[in-house]
Amino acid sequence: MAGKIWIVGAGPGSADLLTMRAVAILRAAEVVLHDDLVSAEVLALCPSSALVINVGKRCGQRGRSQGEINSLMIFHARQARVVARLKSGDPAIFGRLGEELDALRAAAIDFEIVPGVTAVAAAAAAAGLTLTDRRAASALLFLTGHSAGSQPLRRSAFDLDKSSYAVYMPGPDYEKTAAELMEMGIAPATPCALISHAGRNSQKVYFTTVGSLRQTLGIPAPAILIVGRVATRAGSISDCLPTELPHDLPAATLRMGDLRPDPL
Amino acid sequence: MAGKIWIVGAGPGSADLLTMRAVAILRAAEVVLHDDLVSAEVLALCPSSALVINVGKRCGQRGRSQGEINSLMIFHARQARVVARLKSGDPAIFGRLGEELDALRAAAIDFEIVPGVTAVAAAAAAAGLTLTDRRAASALLFLTGHSAGSQPLRRSAFDLDKSSYAVYMPGPDYEKTAAELMEMGIAPATPCALISHAGRNSQKVYFTTVGSLRQTLGIPAPAILIVGRVATRAGSISDCLPTELPHDLPAATLRMGDLRPDPL
Repeated sequence: MAGKIWIVGAGPGSADLLTMRAVAILRAAEVVLHDDLVSAEVLALCPSSALVINVGKRCGQRGRSQGEINSLMIFHARQARVVARLKSGDPAIFGRLGEELDALRAAAIDFEIVPGVTAVAAAAAAAGLTLTDRRAASALLFLTGHSAGSQPLRRSAFDLDKSSYAVYMPGPDYEKTAAELMEMGIAPATPCALISHAGRNSQKVYFTTVGSLRQTLGIPAPAILIVGRVATRAGSISDCLPTELPHDLPAATLRMGDLRPDPL
Repeated sequence: MAGKIWIVGAGPGSADLLTMRAVAILRAAEVVLHDDLVSAEVLALCPSSALVINVGKRCGQRGRSQGEINSLMIFHARQARVVARLKSGDPAIFGRLGEELDALRAAAIDFEIVPGVTAVAAAAAAAGLTLTDRRAASALLFLTGHSAGSQPLRRSAFDLDKSSYAVYMPGPDYEKTAAELMEMGIAPATPCALISHAGRNSQKVYFTTVGSLRQTLGIPAPAILIVGRVATRAGSISDCLPTELPHDLPAATLRMGDLRPDPL
């Protein structure tokens, strides 16, 4: 009776910017715990029989503490069959997901994260602009201007140690990618997760460090590399996901088609 | 007979990670121009009567040039009623969207961008981790390890001038946000776009510069600030979108509820 919870990205607000997977979960949900920013038109998809609870924290106003939210998640995951934790945008981007995952892992609650359209993607679409451009912007930095709660605003310049890095198309030359990260000042011991075929049935996740990344071979493209303290292997993710990074896989697993540089 | 094209984010690969809006457009499409990375299960949603063309460029292999892709987009947008340009992940992130938008604007083709789930969000979901964490990572940097085409890989440290910045929750104190951006080394003349209610019916877009951002008042939360050379007002976006930034709006438009700091 461990329980399970779906952590679902609600996207930027319009119901038709929800993913099909998010809609399927919401329509089947018995309990929905949602942030304050989740729109009414998204919540309208929940069955009328569902228990829908706003667990939102509005800065400077009374609201549930993170500990209370964690307790509600654990309580309902143990009671109900389909429980959704509905978070505005994408759950992994400025959503306090880390604290919730820690609580779920500590309580041995299984979880599945459903990614969503993050607010910046919707903003770029609204403004008719691109966020990266090989002519003008080869990197994209996500910052937060306002921190709900007690964390002081970051006033200094971009801090390498308090950042995560997402590298699109990191392969096939992982030695070069690792060297470039270290040249930026990222320590070799920094954890990283290498995700192959993310969001497909064939997805695989490997945890390693930037220093050991250089020995990587045989990761099917497309892949994404996530670097930083957030990319530590966690305790209780489904067993199928985290595995050791393959160093020098047998030749049979090296399909040249997969090792081509990822196309844009 | 100017024509129109939908630029649609295909997400990370699973059809159920498409947005409802993307599915609706694909199902109605007469012509679909897609990247090589777009999965077969996503393409299977297109009507059998649709003309589906792979315009993908695989690095180091023969493939269509960006100019040829632009010409195909313009040609079909002028001929067919529903034309979709289907791009892996989110169109605005490492998707060469800038060059395609320039070509569409030059040809007076109307366009609408449908944001998608970017590969990094799917990767974080797969690995069961968060990308930002107020305890460990207050910033998130998107980089590309591999550049298709002739652009040399960026070998030096993170380059302020070749980057875009996405600031979540930039308000209500835009003076402070602007000061922090300038403290990071971003020039006051740097263009920026401020998007309020992105992805909702009430969305509004304002173009300004970092230096002028300080005078901003009356932008309804939630808002997103996009900073950098990519955030220049473009010529031919739909008229309803770009408007001048309101400096000191009349008091009647200042609803205190909207001016509260954006909640997380």
